[in-house]
Amino acid sequence: MDQVYKKLELVGSSKNSVEDAIAGALAKAGKTVRNMRWFEVAEIRGFIENEKVAYYQVTLKVGFTVEGTKLP
Amino acid sequence: MDQVYKKLELVGSSKNSVEDAIAGALAKAGKTVRNMRWFEVAEIRGFIENEKVAYYQVTLKVGFTVEGTKLP
Amino acid sequence: MDQVYKKLELVGSSKNSVEDAIAGALAKAGKTVRNMRWFEVAEIRGFIENEKVAYYQVTLKVGFTVEGTKLP
Amino acid sequence: MDQVYKKLELVGSSKNSVEDAIAGALAKAGKTVRNMRWFEVAEIRGFIENEKVAYYQVTLKVGFTVEGTKLP
Amino acid sequence: MDQVYKKLELVGSSKNSVEDAIAGALAKAGKTVRNMRWFEVAEIRGFIENEKVAYYQVTLKVGFTVEGTKLP
Amino acid sequence: MDQVYKKLELVGSSKNSVEDAIAGALAKAGKTVRNMRWFEVAEIRGFIENEKVAYYQVTLKVGFTVEGTKLP
Amino acid sequence: MDQVYKKLELVGSSKNSVEDAIAGALAKAGKTVRNMRWFEVAEIRGFIENEKVAYYQVTLKVGFTVEGTKLP
Amino acid sequence: MDQVYKKLELVGSSKNSVEDAIAGALAKAGKTVRNMRWFEVAEIRGFIENEKVAYYQVTLKVGFTVEGTKLP
Amino acid sequence: MDQVYKKLELVGSSKNSVEDAIAGALAKAGKTVRNMRWFEVAEIRGFIENEKVAYYQVTLKVGFTVEGTKLP
Amino acid sequence: MDQVYKKLELVGSSKNSVEDAIAGALAKAGKTVRNMRWFEVAEIRGFIENEKVAYYQVTLKVGFTVEGTKLP
Amino acid sequence: MDQVYKKLELVGSSKNSVEDAIAGALAKAGKTVRNMRWFEVAEIRGFIENEKVAYYQVTLKVGFTVEGTKLP
Amino acid sequence: MDQVYKKLELVGSSKNSVEDAIAGALAKAGKTVRNMRWFEVAEIRGFIENEKVAYYQVTLKVGFTVEGTKLP
Repeated sequence: MDQVYKKLELVGSSKNSVEDAIAGALAKAGKTVRNMRWFEVAEIRGFIENEKVAYYQVTLKVGFTVEGTKLP
Repeated sequence: MDQVYKKLELVGSSKNSVEDAIAGALAKAGKTVRNMRWFEVAEIRGFIENEKVAYYQVTLKVGFTVEGTKLP
Repeated sequence: MDQVYKKLELVGSSKNSVEDAIAGALAKAGKTVRNMRWFEVAEIRGFIENEKVAYYQVTLKVGFTVEGTKLP
Repeated sequence: MDQVYKKLELVGSSKNSVEDAIAGALAKAGKTVRNMRWFEVAEIRGFIENEKVAYYQVTLKVGFTVEGTKLP
Repeated sequence: MDQVYKKLELVGSSKNSVEDAIAGALAKAGKTVRNMRWFEVAEIRGFIENEKVAYYQVTLKVGFTVEGTKLP
Repeated sequence: MDQVYKKLELVGSSKNSVEDAIAGALAKAGKTVRNMRWFEVAEIRGFIENEKVAYYQVTLKVGFTVEGTKLP
Repeated sequence: MDQVYKKLELVGSSKNSVEDAIAGALAKAGKTVRNMRWFEVAEIRGFIENEKVAYYQVTLKVGFTVEGTKLP
Repeated sequence: MDQVYKKLELVGSSKNSVEDAIAGALAKAGKTVRNMRWFEVAEIRGFIENEKVAYYQVTLKVGFTVEGTKLP
Repeated sequence: MDQVYKKLELVGSSKNSVEDAIAGALAKAGKTVRNMRWFEVAEIRGFIENEKVAYYQVTLKVGFTVEGTKLP
Repeated sequence: MDQVYKKLELVGSSKNSVEDAIAGALAKAGKTVRNMRWFEVAEIRGFIENEKVAYYQVTLKVGFTVEGTKLP
Repeated sequence: MDQVYKKLELVGSSKNSVEDAIAGALAKAGKTVRNMRWFEVAEIRGFIENEKVAYYQVTLKVGFTVEGTKLP
Repeated sequence: MDQVYKKLELVGSSKNSVEDAIAGALAKAGKTVRNMRWFEVAEIRGFIENEKVAYYQVTLKVGFTVEGTKLP
């Protein structure tokens, strides 16, 4: 059948790395969204304290299948 | 009254055409979202098999009124 | 803890000003979304009647915390 | 001689397809603009009624030669 | 029938506000263009004198119906 | 193992439709490139004759696997 | 008074240089448009013959005052 | 003589309006930068408290002449 | 003499990190392209399985010198 | 009071990772700029030697408060 | 027949001018690519020595017909 | 060592050419900024008098090393 996806926009954050900020956002979203299939990084930014990165903030668009999920 | 809309991002797919991919996404979304008013095409892409288009994938932003609908 | 945000896309409208269109969108969204933290203006447009602005339409992306809220 | 073109921005609409919306815009513009040479699709959007596409709206930039045409 | 629109690009200016710059552009354009329907803000800028805004300059794209109007 | 793709940029043309212009580009490319997997539409434009579309031109980015193919 | 400008989109061409393509477009437009004030380069491209530039094509947006000029 | 300008990027904020956020940024910058001539709005965003705009944040690029000013 | 470069577009993937996806794409391309000099990251995305990143996909543009290499 | 920020554009580099390139830029900038608050990644690129990343180059926009700092 | 083009991305450089950098890239590419038809300027940058332009670098996309040429 | 660069945004102008406007901006900036390494052209525009280019205005981003220079 012709598949339909919905895209959700999330911002994850981490003290350690861009990859951890992505992982954190997916873990959190995964508690209520099933069937997440792909993500696209829309923005990488972060906050600074004492001339160091306090934490990274990564904005993601996440695509997931809408079978059996209530929209929106 | 001053109207408020919400925009939803969807990806529809079709073997036949860009128009059918849009129609498929709207039909699916229409099962749970009421009062969809307009769409904007954000991206057209597709998958290839044997040097032919296997299916088109069209990313849409869909605007709908939020009267009586629970957000988000 | 590492915080996760979701971003919602809204369109507010007002006869008076860009600022009122933003306020209207937030007031409406605030009835069902808690913990809205920031917004980004994505587009400013409007409708015209008799050579005057009939109303402004402002598209916003709104970030909110997802603690205790069901996604999406 | 060194040729000069002007570009005009049009929005065509059609119930049927993106291609028909383009054709409609060109047919209408052709009544008063001569020597149209090329177009560029700037935006594809549309309106929705009953979960279906009511009509497509395609924004075009159209280039035409300005020989013997009054500018602008 | 399938409607066709033309888009015109204008720059309005005002000492007071973004909204007044838009109104001024529409009032001026309205003297020769009929049937203006919508506008899109493309750019907001301005000039500075003595560390203050001397005037705002707002670039608009204005859509209008081309019935009975000579193009371009 | 970790897969690597190359992306190729093509322009296809057709008198009939956007979809046929895409198909034409893929058919031609398929004579020398194997393993094409996906495409992304980068631009839609066309040429005009007698106020009609003479042909559509669609610019595609095409992704293909580089196993066993000589790069570039 | 609050000034209003209109912006016109032109494409000039020249065998010699980007600057000559701009000059050619302005000279041509100047035959029917008065009060041109500024231009913005939107695109630089060109055609090739025998591995050499046959001519440059420069797309300009030109701003002019609309006092006493009929719009559009 | 051929004039040279420098552009500075500032973020102003205000509880009231976009225009006040711009004015605040210029007033502050004007204490150390002389000869500011124009600004361009790059981004409009803001923070939310209790479903209302707590303050607007407007990012500006400000152009100023570099005569007699030490760069950067 | 005046140097000429060609730019190639690649997509690398890795289970571990953005950096490993870049390294994988360069290693693969290096088997057939000599004299690669720089890369630009055009897009970061990835696939998700069980609420975790299955692999990162990084799109790169790679510049290399064309001395002695057959184009394209 | 209404806060004003300035944004500075920096390019950091590192042999190891995107994160280290960011950290290096902030450490260097921190010697002369106080009160840095946030950064935005504008570009990720790098140089290649022997088919490997020689170093990453990350372009950042850094926001800092301008209290007591001389502008620009 | 429906024509298919391929687009190639090149970077030319010259001590003298933007136009010479374009010419250099085309001359070099013309040794191995036949049937180049048009180019689009994607980026203009350059290197500086002693406060002067050491050389301009112009990134071009070049379109050429793929008849009889092996892809890619 | 890991190198850090700062980027400065300048606007140069010239009656003659794009290249002269770039040269003028670099000459002026070179009086107070040392170690400028590269530039990127961000915008080309100009002013018009009597249907001719009165002067070109070229916006540049200039990268320079921050060794021993006070930031910002």
